[in-house]
Amino acid sequence: MSDIHPFDPLGPQEITKAAKVVQELFHGKSFNFRVITLKEPPKQEMVAFLEREHLEQPQMSQPARIAHVQLIVHSDSGSNELNDLLVDLDRSIVVQREILVGKHSFIDSDYMKDVENVCMADERVQSEIRKLSLPQGASVVVEPWAYATDGMNDMSERTSMCWFYMRLVDNPDANYYAYPLDLCAEVSEQLKVTKVYHLPSSESERVHEDARPYDPCKIHSTATSEYHPSLRPPPRTTTKPYQVVQPDGVSFKSHGNLLTWEKWTMRVGFNYREGLTLHDIRYDGRSLFYRLSLAEMFVPYGDPRAPFPRKAAFDLGNDGAGINANNLSLGCDCLGLIKYFNGWHNTSLGEPLKLPNVVCCHEQDDGILWKHTNFRTGNAAVVRSRILVLQTIITVSNYEYIFAFHFGQDASIHYEVRATGILSTSPINIGDEVGYGTIVAPGVLAPYHQHLFSLRIDPAIDGVANSLQVEESNPLPFNDPSVRNPFGVGYTTHSEIVTEEGGLDLDFNKNRTFKIINEAKVNPITGTPVGFKLVPCYSQLLLAHPESFHAKRSEYGNHAIWITRYNDDELFPAGKHTMQSLGGEGINSAITQRRNDPDTKSTVRNEDIVIWHTFGSTHNPRIEDWPVMPSEKMVVGLKPVNFFTGNPSLDVAVSSQENNQSRLVSESTCCLSN
Amino acid sequence: MSDIHPFDPLGPQEITKAAKVVQELFHGKSFNFRVITLKEPPKQEMVAFLEREHLEQPQMSQPARIAHVQLIVHSDSGSNELNDLLVDLDRSIVVQREILVGKHSFIDSDYMKDVENVCMADERVQSEIRKLSLPQGASVVVEPWAYATDGMNDMSERTSMCWFYMRLVDNPDANYYAYPLDLCAEVSEQLKVTKVYHLPSSESERVHEDARPYDPCKIHSTATSEYHPSLRPPPRTTTKPYQVVQPDGVSFKSHGNLLTWEKWTMRVGFNYREGLTLHDIRYDGRSLFYRLSLAEMFVPYGDPRAPFPRKAAFDLGNDGAGINANNLSLGCDCLGLIKYFNGWHNTSLGEPLKLPNVVCCHEQDDGILWKHTNFRTGNAAVVRSRILVLQTIITVSNYEYIFAFHFGQDASIHYEVRATGILSTSPINIGDEVGYGTIVAPGVLAPYHQHLFSLRIDPAIDGVANSLQVEESNPLPFNDPSVRNPFGVGYTTHSEIVTEEGGLDLDFNKNRTFKIINEAKVNPITGTPVGFKLVPCYSQLLLAHPESFHAKRSEYGNHAIWITRYNDDELFPAGKHTMQSLGGEGINSAITQRRNDPDTKSTVRNEDIVIWHTFGSTHNPRIEDWPVMPSEKMVVGLKPVNFFTGNPSLDVAVSSQENNQSRLVSESTCCLSN
Repeated sequence: MSDIHPFDPLGPQEITKAAKVVQELFHGKSFNFRVITLKEPPKQEMVAFLEREHLEQPQMSQPARIAHVQLIVHSDSGSNELNDLLVDLDRSIVVQREILVGKHSFIDSDYMKDVENVCMADERVQSEIRKLSLPQGASVVVEPWAYATDGMNDMSERTSMCWFYMRLVDNPDANYYAYPLDLCAEVSEQLKVTKVYHLPSSESERVHEDARPYDPCKIHSTATSEYHPSLRPPPRTTTKPYQVVQPDGVSFKSHGNLLTWEKWTMRVGFNYREGLTLHDIRYDGRSLFYRLSLAEMFVPYGDPRAPFPRKAAFDLGNDGAGINANNLSLGCDCLGLIKYFNGWHNTSLGEPLKLPNVVCCHEQDDGILWKHTNFRTGNAAVVRSRILVLQTIITVSNYEYIFAFHFGQDASIHYEVRATGILSTSPINIGDEVGYGTIVAPGVLAPYHQHLFSLRIDPAIDGVANSLQVEESNPLPFNDPSVRNPFGVGYTTHSEIVTEEGGLDLDFNKNRTFKIINEAKVNPITGTPVGFKLVPCYSQLLLAHPESFHAKRSEYGNHAIWITRYNDDELFPAGKHTMQSLGGEGINSAITQRRNDPDTKSTVRNEDIVIWHTFGSTHNPRIEDWPVMPSEKMVVGLKPVNFFTGNPSLDVAVSSQENNQSRLVSESTCCLSN
Repeated sequence: MSDIHPFDPLGPQEITKAAKVVQELFHGKSFNFRVITLKEPPKQEMVAFLEREHLEQPQMSQPARIAHVQLIVHSDSGSNELNDLLVDLDRSIVVQREILVGKHSFIDSDYMKDVENVCMADERVQSEIRKLSLPQGASVVVEPWAYATDGMNDMSERTSMCWFYMRLVDNPDANYYAYPLDLCAEVSEQLKVTKVYHLPSSESERVHEDARPYDPCKIHSTATSEYHPSLRPPPRTTTKPYQVVQPDGVSFKSHGNLLTWEKWTMRVGFNYREGLTLHDIRYDGRSLFYRLSLAEMFVPYGDPRAPFPRKAAFDLGNDGAGINANNLSLGCDCLGLIKYFNGWHNTSLGEPLKLPNVVCCHEQDDGILWKHTNFRTGNAAVVRSRILVLQTIITVSNYEYIFAFHFGQDASIHYEVRATGILSTSPINIGDEVGYGTIVAPGVLAPYHQHLFSLRIDPAIDGVANSLQVEESNPLPFNDPSVRNPFGVGYTTHSEIVTEEGGLDLDFNKNRTFKIINEAKVNPITGTPVGFKLVPCYSQLLLAHPESFHAKRSEYGNHAIWITRYNDDELFPAGKHTMQSLGGEGINSAITQRRNDPDTKSTVRNEDIVIWHTFGSTHNPRIEDWPVMPSEKMVVGLKPVNFFTGNPSLDVAVSSQENNQSRLVSESTCCLSN
């Protein structure tokens, strides 16, 4: 049997092999590789594989290693053909080929550099820049963005929006977002500048052709706009060092991508689009989740003035959480003992490209896990909470997102997202204001926007046949002779099991709780089905009008919870191809299609189901988010509900001073104690 | 000038002095002290004092040190008179005296012991216990609870409910909640057993007189019911030590109860009822909050069957977060360098009683505060978040609550509550089930209940005249020719300032945001009033019927947000005296009274206001909460919104390996790296 596990991402040799097979197919043509990544095996096959694996039975066969390859093939006529292939690596053959008509590949930093270069080399652009009469020493920076569909353009070509900024200080790390220019350009797939115009700088202004000189009143002190230490005065010195020491090493073990820690086992995956993925997650040998992943992320801006509706990024589908993952470094992104995982991507030539340290794995202390003091004896038992953190951080132009799965000793999982980085800005006239943005510096508008994440939860609660139970807590009727509630204080729960695919919403006023249960497995003590509940992140849903392209393209933004039947090909709730998508490709369309097709099942009770949680923030910037934003935390939880027969962390050792080595603050470090 | 600050809690000499003054007043009578605590100075006086203090101007005078004293005076006729006094400690005189008719003092462990003893000494109780035919070796435990008003009893006397449990193993730390007995007794103020009866053990059963022998099928293994290490098998050994080292000491300084850390200053307070309080909280010299405190906590149970509606605890008003605060210990409750604060209470004789280590103060690393990687240069700037934690932990019979204020370098405050401890249980017949509880062990019902906290926020955002602004994010109209929103993606905010006292509710669907603002102080950049926003904890409100005693007694449980005019005497949203209260004494009654009184102002715009946030959990137990419950976290935030002119943590030094000393996991500590 191979040392490669079916969930392992493609390694460098496999990437090379896949490229070779495809290169032979397109021999003689001009092409460049976009994606060479693992096509995960069919779940049905994997479930049987995993069952044998965990029973330590020999495998009859290994699922085929399949590479999913995307490449752009250039025709002689100059048009680009986006090809989507599946390559069987064991047999070295292409097993599926599709030409994606009307679809566009994601953008990447190479392409962005190309766009920036042609933009800056363009005669009209340079002419418009000159008309701005920028201050002495200013250098112009172009920030290309994926074009968000607004119905104004022919969508058959990939287009980039180019936003312009300037640097006033001669330092490549200067925060150019502090100087948004009113210039804008559009660049075609063929790397031609197709349009150059000026942006509105007030509520009433529109896109226009007339350049206005840059208003020198907008120039402000670097102290308020720069975040990089090379441009800052010396930092505060009051923060004393704080170190994590693990004298006996870490409590986790890894073997390749298999991670074991405190009764948990899971496999770490990584791909160009979703970044970190987790597979076959078990606690104490019992199956919990087949796969957990961030499935999409949409960042629509609320500025209604053209061309700003084109600012609406699918950070996974358009940009990729994997290829934009930071190379994490010791002492910065985590404390203590750190294990890093590398990722692999490919160059345009099909060579393997190492993405170093894209995931870090470490432990954290998380305060008190449980405590009880017997008030009769005064004896306290305290157990501290240790968590295992799997973290990845991505940079998408101005913003960063810190994604972390936290595993608890009590069998809980928390998915924490932190949004940080720099606000995307646009120009505003001094003295003007608008209803959809905050002025964060003279002439700098930070427009309102939303961040809508989709967490894809592919459960396998004691097996793949699961149901979604929606429970609410309701008062018992009062003064109803048929109900015993004489004092009006009784309440009870009412629950229903969802039977059809669809979208559902949150209601904390009813304590609405979403439980993923296995109806076939009844808890021997409570007498109820075993389950895990979703602890949601309460967030406003998509504000864009249902008829807008934003809404049509980001179907998942319309409900907080979605339930679908499992489908090997449904990983992305806004569709596979989000670049300039026109809508109709997301989770709701898939559900509707199945519902309308008499030959397709759309029932979800006791089935292999997937739960998708939409959450995020309506981010109306505060000036405190400028020039770099303190992390905004969002947390989603998954917790056992009557899954075990008691507190799974009951056997964690109580805390001791011997192990924890805390110290009293001494008089010398702290002036006076009372 | 005195070394004592006006916000300092009473010290032992002051407690002794207050007792002496009162003892003289009641010379010759029999009495016992319940409370000797600081009566905080009038705010109006303090605001002027603080202004001079922060301007380093000499104080003209020091606010009088006033002790608030409660004592029970026993009359010859056997009745008890609850006296409430204010003692001027500078002048050694009683300045105010009130006899609280129909009010009852809180309960404490001495009283609970007395109740338990008389109960166990009672002939009828012993007779009923004998009828239960308890298993060999069983010992009976009585758990006295404050009596929650249900309208069934004369309320003129303090009454205790006595719930019965048994221990099966001869260990004082055995978890007797695993063996709830169907016995119940009531004990009067005069420590007489007034009633003995048996509890319902099924949905249809009622309180009854007939004892049934204990069902031996309810006896189960200690492995599933014991949490104390002395009764557990050896714990898991997989969790390796994790230590926090602060080689240069802590970043905070304390001088008495004045704490300074990373631009923050505040004064730590403590009293028998609220426990930890914080005063005069400032950042970078600017005033933010006059006082922050947990103001009340209500735990009503949802079991409708008599006598269970009497289970509804006001854990502050009835029990006291201060007198039930744990004596925190090194290496258990926190890691790293710890400073403890002691509290002072009084004995029944009026002697000072030290409550050691009731508050701990330490720093924690809180992950990444902000990060940005310039994708052009690849240069990352990462700043780690250090937080200052002020923590207190209370035990109220079966449950524990961990209360912690987290101060951030970005000027944010988070109030974190963790609920842990043991579920309160009641008996249920084997094979039966009810709609308002979870069976966590054979014969053990963990009834549904709610935890409703009230966080009292007394703001002083750049001064005491503040307003509450409620903001919502709304889509701009689409297809309305008068509004420019051609693509249907625009959205804007709408806000209103609350003008009258009252209750408000949360709505995440509208991104409803509550900002405490100072309308007189406009941010020079954003052009909007300076403010702090409340980041609420979304929770179901009180489920009990509005006509129930639960609802009448816990008025604050009816809305998530309350706004009132500041009043020196309004610290408690369920009223000052919650023991067997009848309702009509809480926050809503105070508001209604003012609204109906033409001579009283009820406007709250540009006034000295108080904001109260009701939050908590509807706790329908999971078996994973048994026999001891993994912490359930609830978090409330307070964050600057256009209060500063930029990110207040911009000057925190970037993270460095030199300071943080992280290490790579070595091959020897972690099997294989990929």
